Amino acid sequence: MSQPGKSDALMSHDELEAVLRLTGAERYHNLHRFHKRQYSGQCTYEEVQAWALNRYYYQASIPIKDAAVLTRMNDADDRRAWRKRIEDHDGLKEGDGGIERWLKLTDSLGFSRDYVKSTVGILPGTRFAVDAYINFCKERTLLEAVASSLTELFSPTIIGERVTGMLAHYDFVSKETLAYFTARPEQAKRDSEFALAYVKEHAKTREQQDLVVAALEFKCHVLWTQLDAIWTAYIDKLPPAGVWVPGTHVAQQGKAA
Amino acid sequence: MSQPGKSDALMSHDELEAVLRLTGAERYHNLHRFHKRQYSGQCTYEEVQAWALNRYYYQASIPIKDAAVLTRMNDADDRRAWRKRIEDHDGLKEGDGGIERWLKLTDSLGFSRDYVKSTVGILPGTRFAVDAYINFCKERTLLEAVASSLTELFSPTIIGERVTGMLAHYDFVSKETLAYFTARPEQAKRDSEFALAYVKEHAKTREQQDLVVAALEFKCHVLWTQLDAIWTAYIDKLPPAGVWVPGTHVAQQGKAA
Repeated sequence: MSQPGKSDALMSHDELEAVLRLTGAERYHNLHRFHKRQYSGQCTYEEVQAWALNRYYYQASIPIKDAAVLTRMNDADDRRAWRKRIEDHDGLKEGDGGIERWLKLTDSLGFSRDYVKSTVGILPGTRFAVDAYINFCKERTLLEAVASSLTELFSPTIIGERVTGMLAHYDFVSKETLAYFTARPEQAKRDSEFALAYVKEHAKTREQQDLVVAALEFKCHVLWTQLDAIWTAYIDKLPPAGVWVPGTHVAQQGKAA
Repeated sequence: MSQPGKSDALMSHDELEAVLRLTGAERYHNLHRFHKRQYSGQCTYEEVQAWALNRYYYQASIPIKDAAVLTRMNDADDRRAWRKRIEDHDGLKEGDGGIERWLKLTDSLGFSRDYVKSTVGILPGTRFAVDAYINFCKERTLLEAVASSLTELFSPTIIGERVTGMLAHYDFVSKETLAYFTARPEQAKRDSEFALAYVKEHAKTREQQDLVVAALEFKCHVLWTQLDAIWTAYIDKLPPAGVWVPGTHVAQQGKAA
């Protein structure tokens, strides 16, 4: 399998997986300068706030994205497997689930829940990228929609770096406030194994395999451009008009404020 | 009309127009650092190339956006007026129209037409912002879709600065290669007068007037974030993977290359 993906021939399942893993190795947002800044302790309190506030919109949109995927699955087994993603984010009961755990993080950073949930203060770059992801999963083929979730193959590593680095460097986060990430690696492993098996089985032509790779590239862009937008607005300090201004909309003072 | 837009009362037509003009004065992309860099002659040849290549996607998407608006207009008079926008961009015959004139600009900057038209090299930030604009005009109310075009109220000024500045500072552009902009101010004046009259007439509640203002704010973000993306990728030189690399995909050398 030398140079998988470089000819026009159908790839074996192993070759397709190798191309997908290479795509992540070259494009996943663990390579972004913001991630490095964050896990190495160079972020200010306000930069972590901005990241958590904006990323809420991504977290809160995931079940909507997954519901759009569900509407397109004709197989009950597939739907049952995919439904777990919605359960993970929305929880099995009130006060449970990934979105709730993300709100515990924004709570701990001093934001009022109403403000976070309103999403009025997020960056347009966040909104455009996340909405592009939802629309991609509505408009492209089901195969591409499933493939676009494959960034989860790479999330356990970035989560490990992020949690370890943030706990070591920032006194305003704790294991409790980062609880969102405790549950994710196991869920992401289960979900990405399903998605990887799915795309291997359902991409039956080289053209479909190329669409699978392109879907993963697209999703890497969705994640990458969100961090670009954070950097311009809150590190270069050139925010578009109307977005969250550090020091505002906080219900309580965070520890390091 | 002191502090128009600050109370909850219905605004007069003049007050609404004042709020819209203030929105443009505070948020239009003539205030972006890229515009200043461009018209003051500080852009490199490659930065102008990147801007023209990316902005092609915006230009090429405008008739699609306008067709989406047309599908929602029940009044033949309105459709006839709005149709002119599509005619302006697509032309009345082959080789005519705003998109063709934009391609003359990218021709003059050395790009092959096939590459420009493929849009494979544009920034994800460009694509996400432009697609957000198209989807806004499909999904929001017709009133909001019309209102989102109101950035044209402010385009004659930015075009004047851009063309004067670029002709003065860059030997790789000429009146001929900037022909796109020659036609635009008159068209934009006609179109924005229609849209302004339309939103004044059709926004009959304060809530609708607020949606009109929000639509213009949204559109300012669409334009602004495109320049943010250009800056990060081609001035800070931190492009996302897979986008156009300066020096590649040029069919001929531009004068200043």
